[in-house]
Amino acid sequence: MSTIGKKFAKLGVDNAPGQEGRCKEDSLDFRGEPLPGRAVDFSHGDVDAFPPIPNSLKHVINGVEHIGARQAYTEYRGGSETLFMLSEKLSLFAGCAIDSLQGMILTPGTQGALFLAMGALVGRGDKVAIVEPDYFANRKLVEFFDGEIVPVKMDYFGCNDRAGLDMEQLENVFRGGVKLFLFSNPNNPVGAVYSQQEIHAIAELAGHYGVSLIVDELYSRQIFDGRGYTHLCAEKNAPAQLVTILGPSKTESMSGYRLGVAFGSRDIIERMEKLQAIVSLRAAGYCQAAFASWFSEPAGWMAGRIVEHQQIRDDLVSMLSSCDGVQVRPTEAGSYLFPQLPPLDVDIKTFVKILRQHAQVTVTPGTEFGPQFTDSIRINFSQDAVAACSAIERMLCLMSRYRK
Amino acid sequence: MSTIGKKFAKLGVDNAPGQEGRCKEDSLDFRGEPLPGRAVDFSHGDVDAFPPIPNSLKHVINGVEHIGARQAYTEYRGGSETLFMLSEKLSLFAGCAIDSLQGMILTPGTQGALFLAMGALVGRGDKVAIVEPDYFANRKLVEFFDGEIVPVKMDYFGCNDRAGLDMEQLENVFRGGVKLFLFSNPNNPVGAVYSQQEIHAIAELAGHYGVSLIVDELYSRQIFDGRGYTHLCAEKNAPAQLVTILGPSKTESMSGYRLGVAFGSRDIIERMEKLQAIVSLRAAGYCQAAFASWFSEPAGWMAGRIVEHQQIRDDLVSMLSSCDGVQVRPTEAGSYLFPQLPPLDVDIKTFVKILRQHAQVTVTPGTEFGPQFTDSIRINFSQDAVAACSAIERMLCLMSRYRK
Repeated sequence: MSTIGKKFAKLGVDNAPGQEGRCKEDSLDFRGEPLPGRAVDFSHGDVDAFPPIPNSLKHVINGVEHIGARQAYTEYRGGSETLFMLSEKLSLFAGCAIDSLQGMILTPGTQGALFLAMGALVGRGDKVAIVEPDYFANRKLVEFFDGEIVPVKMDYFGCNDRAGLDMEQLENVFRGGVKLFLFSNPNNPVGAVYSQQEIHAIAELAGHYGVSLIVDELYSRQIFDGRGYTHLCAEKNAPAQLVTILGPSKTESMSGYRLGVAFGSRDIIERMEKLQAIVSLRAAGYCQAAFASWFSEPAGWMAGRIVEHQQIRDDLVSMLSSCDGVQVRPTEAGSYLFPQLPPLDVDIKTFVKILRQHAQVTVTPGTEFGPQFTDSIRINFSQDAVAACSAIERMLCLMSRYRK
Repeated sequence: MSTIGKKFAKLGVDNAPGQEGRCKEDSLDFRGEPLPGRAVDFSHGDVDAFPPIPNSLKHVINGVEHIGARQAYTEYRGGSETLFMLSEKLSLFAGCAIDSLQGMILTPGTQGALFLAMGALVGRGDKVAIVEPDYFANRKLVEFFDGEIVPVKMDYFGCNDRAGLDMEQLENVFRGGVKLFLFSNPNNPVGAVYSQQEIHAIAELAGHYGVSLIVDELYSRQIFDGRGYTHLCAEKNAPAQLVTILGPSKTESMSGYRLGVAFGSRDIIERMEKLQAIVSLRAAGYCQAAFASWFSEPAGWMAGRIVEHQQIRDDLVSMLSSCDGVQVRPTEAGSYLFPQLPPLDVDIKTFVKILRQHAQVTVTPGTEFGPQFTDSIRINFSQDAVAACSAIERMLCLMSRYRK
């Protein structure tokens, strides 16, 4: 097989969230009667249950009908007025200065920002430290750009006042020549928030060893229980080579517009724009208009959304925890849960397929987040509350049929 | 400089269309008084002069407000209903069977399709044949994926019944180990259409030498003078490894939605989807709804648009041709002209900067389309007709001040 053939053979999407329809139909060992109920797709949030920020569509309509050509064709890095407006809002939110002219870029979703940032920083053979577990695309991106994945462990069951990153291991791999460290905070899929001490130490180590940082803060607005959150970019010791990624696709339910933003070091942002010029030119010009509603939600809207999600988390965590053999860390921020299931007769990918076909419940297998998570699944609980509880009940029932 | 540093140093965007605001401000040799007039940006079409297909926005609004989650989150390759609908329309248009399930993908613009197709096919060191002149991103894409550009000449001034591709050279480079041939038909920037004989010969040679083909047919709906057009995918001898790219960003003025489509060999489309999963997940879900208006324009709308563009072409070609020392091939399809200017006292990039600052006229330097086009500029004449004529007049006036 050619080099590029091998690369694509590794780059699977069949088990990725939202791609379940592409799964090969195996003959599955169904046990017991099907469990009927409203289909729930935990692979991503349900924007029918939690609709986009009010007025975002109005901004898009205005962009198409009134702003016109200027909205359709922006610079590759995004429209200058939108960049300026967002730099003001995000500076306040993240507590750091953002240069809207040179240090910021609008992208097609945060996935777009991740791809561009990785493309800007990862060359052939470069060592990239990746947390396990972390967002499934992180590892695929390193492979696509011919980098070398250097995993760093996170003991997320061992603590609840920090994420649980193995800082000793992190320093070891930094010392061992890691060029870039990419991580999500809050962590996807665990929903753990890094403590101020952890963030401070990561910044310190990155500066000391000359490691570049990409911090994916996609879920940083949806913090539960009034917990604190530390933006690495606001730390005094933040390293020079740093990109922070944010976007309105999750809590704000605006994924359908494919909008993301990255800010940080000018030279990295400049490379990201060069790459965007050949990848997709720009985030859809008309969609960029929807950014106007972000961080300008109606009074109480965001607070209400957080309360509703916290309630669903409480309900699901309670159901999962009370089931013998299931271990789960309550989400501290974001909409993910990453429960560990007891030993089953079937492997996790098979269980996920059975669950989908026999109980209309779609979840993402843990192995998407690191090869060792063969006993875990990820759930996005941004769903209709009643439907979500019923789906978890069906899942637990089905699980009991396959327990070892 | 690191390998990746060198790669990005080559990947310039400052002179790319739409990025003129990023040009370094040099001290320019202005001659004579400024030439006032309405600013015209010939680097891309003006969607205020030629607005998007009627009803496209309504489809988007319906997608957001009524279809909801199903519209926001499609499979990475696009929503299955949209894929099916488009496969029917495009099969009719291109005259070939399209497999909507396995052989088609929706992308963020045709730029997105090009990037994914190139990423799917170009590995380190692979030889890729590129027409000169051709779309400026083609060469950049080869460089980004570490391929080797193998240029093929097109004698576009030497004929008017075919594009003028050097078929002997094409066969030589195919024989010499070229793996992939990428070309646009109609050609961007010349506006030349490949003859049936040329298309047939390209297909034949590709099959014979086992070369993969990417055919960018972005402007294939805007054909002037009732000329014929040959879709390579419809040729009986079309090779197995073939991707055709189309989209509604140009004639249809829908660039602000960032929509493109690629269809062809299943294995290439499958790779493109795998890549899309880490690049930007999908073409913006809500925007995908706008595809419903494509190839379903109101009666007479497309014909009227073609007539209007043909008239502008006639006016500009007449102005340019009557200027001593300027050579131009009349556009056969699409909205581009690629006139060759007489020898000037300043290089083409400098002239383009002076033109922009002194006469409010933005054009793209020929060097974006091949290093040898130091005396040519590209013009997108999808503009307000009166403003376009006035801008060309100013350009010719300014040009006279810098003639050798």
